[in-house]
Amino acid sequence: MAGIRERKKQRTRRALIEAALRLFAEKGYEETTLAEIAAEADVSTRTFFSYFASKEDVIFHDMESRMERTAALVRSRAPDEPLPDLLTRIARDALAHAAGDENYAVEEMPLRIRLMMTVPALQARALHLLYTSQLRLARALHESYRGRLSPVEAAAAVGAFAGAAKLAVMASVERGESMDQALDAALVATEITLRGLRSLG
Amino acid sequence: MAGIRERKKQRTRRALIEAALRLFAEKGYEETTLAEIAAEADVSTRTFFSYFASKEDVIFHDMESRMERTAALVRSRAPDEPLPDLLTRIARDALAHAAGDENYAVEEMPLRIRLMMTVPALQARALHLLYTSQLRLARALHESYRGRLSPVEAAAAVGAFAGAAKLAVMASVERGESMDQALDAALVATEITLRGLRSLG
Repeated sequence: MAGIRERKKQRTRRALIEAALRLFAEKGYEETTLAEIAAEADVSTRTFFSYFASKEDVIFHDMESRMERTAALVRSRAPDEPLPDLLTRIARDALAHAAGDENYAVEEMPLRIRLMMTVPALQARALHLLYTSQLRLARALHESYRGRLSPVEAAAAVGAFAGAAKLAVMASVERGESMDQALDAALVATEITLRGLRSLG
Repeated sequence: MAGIRERKKQRTRRALIEAALRLFAEKGYEETTLAEIAAEADVSTRTFFSYFASKEDVIFHDMESRMERTAALVRSRAPDEPLPDLLTRIARDALAHAAGDENYAVEEMPLRIRLMMTVPALQARALHLLYTSQLRLARALHESYRGRLSPVEAAAAVGAFAGAAKLAVMASVERGESMDQALDAALVATEITLRGLRSLG
């Protein structure tokens, strides 16, 4: 029975996300109200709030759980797992999660990226999340590889890995490629950081 | 004579930046008006506008010229200069420029970073500049190394290089280190991306 209720909740959440993205694309993010999103998804404004804390949250709701997934991967690593292997697992997990996220169809990513890059309120939160999540991961890696990875090395590793993946996705989306191509580009980009930029050009 | 006038202009610009940062730190960015900045620097509001287009611009005014410096380095590279050497030159130039910028004393960087990370209007512009400048550099490198550097490789190189340097600076500032240490960390971080993350842990 819990299964049915859970599926119903997932459907409502999905309907709210789709309604919100449709309205954001049609009339603009700032111009869309919570009440309009709820109406478009055939639910009450009150119901909206049992799924999302705010309009911003429709765009960013999965960030906290994604950070938690990554933290769990670091905590559960085998004691002898080398850093590059752990980083590769983190990248593959994040990309598989992005590709398989039933709440965000892959084809909606360009719209989400465009919104995050053009709506000031979303840009602000995106920048904040970008750095807090990376700084948090760098600290976790430094702890996990204590004595073998300095704070600077941990920051360099996370910044390079995330920076390469993100810019590869954005450049791919900018070239009008499909989201599958963009995710492939992200994976190639992280592999390049493992073997080093000296292997290029 | 032009030398004296130029030095006077530099002094006024510097006074405006110092006044603005002092007021931002004391009463907050949003709460500080242009008129107050001008008064604090003993100039008219009209004079403010002959130096900066807006309050935001006091924080970001050097971004466009920094992007142009980088673009010039790419354009002027020797035909046989390998990508890693060019990237190293770009990093050293940017860091030397940051350390030697007479308009922004190095000790003011933590305040600028804190403002960029906490004031929504600044966060928004920081994110936009961050990605447009990196995408622009990736395109320039792809053009410059045509046939030898794919779009994905160019994006990976720029994203990794910039991502590593920026996160190393932020982690260093977060640990309360001096700006000289933060800039050193950035240089170490870029060197790590050249030799690859496989060299770590």
